[in-house]
Amino acid sequence: MITINESNLIVAKIKPLEVTEKIGLNNSLDRILANPIVADIDQPSFDKSAMDGYACKRKDLQKPMKVVGVIAAGTVVNEVVQTGECYRIFTGAPLPPGTDCVIMQEDTTVDSNGLVYFKAEKTKDNICYCGEDTKAGKIVVEAGTRIRPQHLAIMASYGVVEPTVTKKPTVTFFCSGSELIEPTDKPQGAMIRNSNASQLIGQLTEAGAQVNYKGIISDDFELVSQSLKSNIGKADIIIITGGASVGDFDFIPSVLKNIGAEIRISALNMQPGKPVLFAILNNTLIFGLSGNPVSSFLQFKVLVEPVILRLSGANSFLPTLVKIPLAKEIVRKKGNRQLYIPVGINELGQAEPVRFNGSAHINALNLANGFVVVKPNITILKSDELVYMILI
Amino acid sequence: MITINESNLIVAKIKPLEVTEKIGLNNSLDRILANPIVADIDQPSFDKSAMDGYACKRKDLQKPMKVVGVIAAGTVVNEVVQTGECYRIFTGAPLPPGTDCVIMQEDTTVDSNGLVYFKAEKTKDNICYCGEDTKAGKIVVEAGTRIRPQHLAIMASYGVVEPTVTKKPTVTFFCSGSELIEPTDKPQGAMIRNSNASQLIGQLTEAGAQVNYKGIISDDFELVSQSLKSNIGKADIIIITGGASVGDFDFIPSVLKNIGAEIRISALNMQPGKPVLFAILNNTLIFGLSGNPVSSFLQFKVLVEPVILRLSGANSFLPTLVKIPLAKEIVRKKGNRQLYIPVGINELGQAEPVRFNGSAHINALNLANGFVVVKPNITILKSDELVYMILI
Repeated sequence: MITINESNLIVAKIKPLEVTEKIGLNNSLDRILANPIVADIDQPSFDKSAMDGYACKRKDLQKPMKVVGVIAAGTVVNEVVQTGECYRIFTGAPLPPGTDCVIMQEDTTVDSNGLVYFKAEKTKDNICYCGEDTKAGKIVVEAGTRIRPQHLAIMASYGVVEPTVTKKPTVTFFCSGSELIEPTDKPQGAMIRNSNASQLIGQLTEAGAQVNYKGIISDDFELVSQSLKSNIGKADIIIITGGASVGDFDFIPSVLKNIGAEIRISALNMQPGKPVLFAILNNTLIFGLSGNPVSSFLQFKVLVEPVILRLSGANSFLPTLVKIPLAKEIVRKKGNRQLYIPVGINELGQAEPVRFNGSAHINALNLANGFVVVKPNITILKSDELVYMILI
Repeated sequence: MITINESNLIVAKIKPLEVTEKIGLNNSLDRILANPIVADIDQPSFDKSAMDGYACKRKDLQKPMKVVGVIAAGTVVNEVVQTGECYRIFTGAPLPPGTDCVIMQEDTTVDSNGLVYFKAEKTKDNICYCGEDTKAGKIVVEAGTRIRPQHLAIMASYGVVEPTVTKKPTVTFFCSGSELIEPTDKPQGAMIRNSNASQLIGQLTEAGAQVNYKGIISDDFELVSQSLKSNIGKADIIIITGGASVGDFDFIPSVLKNIGAEIRISALNMQPGKPVLFAILNNTLIFGLSGNPVSSFLQFKVLVEPVILRLSGANSFLPTLVKIPLAKEIVRKKGNRQLYIPVGINELGQAEPVRFNGSAHINALNLANGFVVVKPNITILKSDELVYMILI
C-alpha cells in the first residue's frame, strides 16, 4: 500500500502523449491547449476612452470648451484637437490626437451655446492606454491550460480561431462481475444492475477522454486475461472495474501478472477505495477499480482523472483542493487511512456531510458536491474547522 | 437599479418551459431531470455479505465450523445452513438461508481438517441488509437535479436507461458594435476583435442552452430593432451584447422600447457589470449584456445562467457560493455596489485575487477560478477572512 502523495508522484512521472490536433475555437471548450497563446497585438491596441464623456486637453480644463465632433467606438479621428476644443466621446472609442484626458459626462455642464465646462475639482485621465494590459509578443495563456469560456474570449481577441489542442486519450473499459446485468434488465436472485459503467462513462467524458465501453464480462480468469490482452496497444488506457465476487485483492492482480503487466500500485492508503490497481504493459496503462460505485468514483477522481489529465498535457492534473468550513463535527474511531467524506455545500457555503452508509451505498453521492479529505491519523474534525474539499 | 437579491426574486418567478424529452442514459450528463427517479427495487435487493469471510450462525461462533460450500457474488444458495456449518463467502454475495452473520477472514483460523474457528472476541454482522439503503418506491433523485456522473450510477442501478429530461432552452444572440470585427481578421484603426461571442458560446453551452450565434451587427437603431424583432418567438432567449459605442445606457433600452419590450431590469447593483438589461416581449426573454468580456462574463453568471437553469426546471438555479479564506486583503475606496473580484485558488486552497485592471482587461480571467463576492458597503476584507466565492 502506498500513500496518496506517493501515488501523485507516480502520476507526475507519466509522460504526456504529445499528440495534437487543430480544432475550431468555438468547439475547443474543456480541451487542453498544446501551445501557448501569444498576443499578436497590443491590448488595447490604441489609446481608448474608458468612459462616456469629453476628450480634451488637461490644460484646458478651467476654460469653456467647444465640441468639434462625436467619436463612437470604431471611429478614427485624424485632425489634431486644438486648444479650447473637445470631442464628445464614448466608451471604447479612440482618443483623438492632441487630447490627453477624458472628463466624465457627470463632471460637466453644457451651456446654451453648446460650450462644455468642467465642474469637478480634478479628474483621472480615464484612458485605457495602448498596451497597458498586454504587449504584443507576450504569452497570454500558457500551454497545458484547460480551455474555459474566458479563454475563448482571450483567444478570440488575439485572432486564434483554430487553437492547437492535445488529442483526447483513448480509454477502453470493461466491467467484470458474474453478478452483473445491464441496467435494461431486472435483477433476479443475487444479480445486480451494473451502475459503474454509466458513471464511468460520465467521469471519463468530463475528464476529457475518448471512451469505448466494452460491456460486462464474467469473473473468468481466462476471459478477463484475454479481454485485457487483446486491447493492449489499442487504447492509451484500459480500465476494468470489479472482480469483487472472487476477492478484490487476488483476482485482477493475478490476471495482470498472467498477461505480463507490471503492477505499479496495488493499494492506496484511502478510505473508501483502498484496493485499486495501476499497471503498465507495452505503454498501455491499466487500472483496476472497485465494483462499488462510490469507491470507484473516488478512485477515478484520485488516480485515474489525474492520469488522463497528465496524458493530455494539462499543467494542473491533481484535483483542486478548496479550503472550506465544516458544518458538522466528523469523528472516526481509528484513522490510519486518508478518509474521503461525501459532502454537499449548504446555504452558508459550508461543507455538510451527506448520509453515507459505506462504499456500496449507491445513493450516497446524490446530494454530494464533493469530498472532505481527512488526513491519516486525524480522528476528529470539529464543526467550523477549515478542511480541504475536492469538488465534484 | 435593483439589488442582486431583487434580481434573484425576479428570476425565481420565471416559469420553467416544461417541455421534456427522453434521452439515452449515457448521453444525459449535465441535463436536468424532468421527473423524479423512483427506486424500482430495494437497495440492496437481498441480504448480502459486506466482507470476504465465512457466513454462519452467530450461536455457532464458539464451535468449530465445517465449510459446506463457496458463495461468490451472483450465486444463490437455496439449502438451509445447519448448526455447525458455514459457507466461504465473498463481498457482494447473498447470505445463505439459516445464517445471520459473516465473520471476517482475518478473524478466523482453519485447521488441517478444514474446520473454521472464530478467534476474535466479537464481530459485527457484516451484512448489508435488504433495503437498508433504499426501499422500492422511494424517490432517489429529485426532479430538477442536474445529472452528474454519480446520478448516472444511481439511475442505472434502478433500471432508468432512458431518463426524461427537460429540453434545452434555445438562445439566439447577436454582438452589437460598429467597432467589432470577427477574430479571423486583423484589427485596423479603432476596430477590435469580437471576443464576447466565443466566450458566450462557451458559457451558454455549459449552462445547458441550445446556442444560435447570429454574428456582429453595427450599432444602427433600425438594424438592431429589426434583428431583435425578427427573432421574437423563434427562441426562448435573445441576447445582444454591446452597444457601448453609443452609450451603454441609452441605445439598447431605446431599441427595446421601440420594439415594445417590457424592461424588467435596466441596471444591477454590481461591479463590474452594472448596466445590464432584462426585458420580455411575447414570452421571449431578452438580455442586453456589456460589450466588455469581463463584465459580460459576470452578468451571464449572475443573471443569464440562473434564468437558463430556471427555464430548464433546475431546482438549484443560483450560483453556488462556497465559503473560503481569502489569501490577501482586499480594500476598496467606496463600495455601494456588490463587488466581484476575480480570484484563483492557490495551493493552500485559499482565494487569491488575480491581476485585474478593470472590466475591459480581457486577460484578467485567464488564471481565475471564480469571483469573491464583496457585499455593498463593505470596504475591507482582511487576509484569512472567510468570504463567499462563486466558482467558474
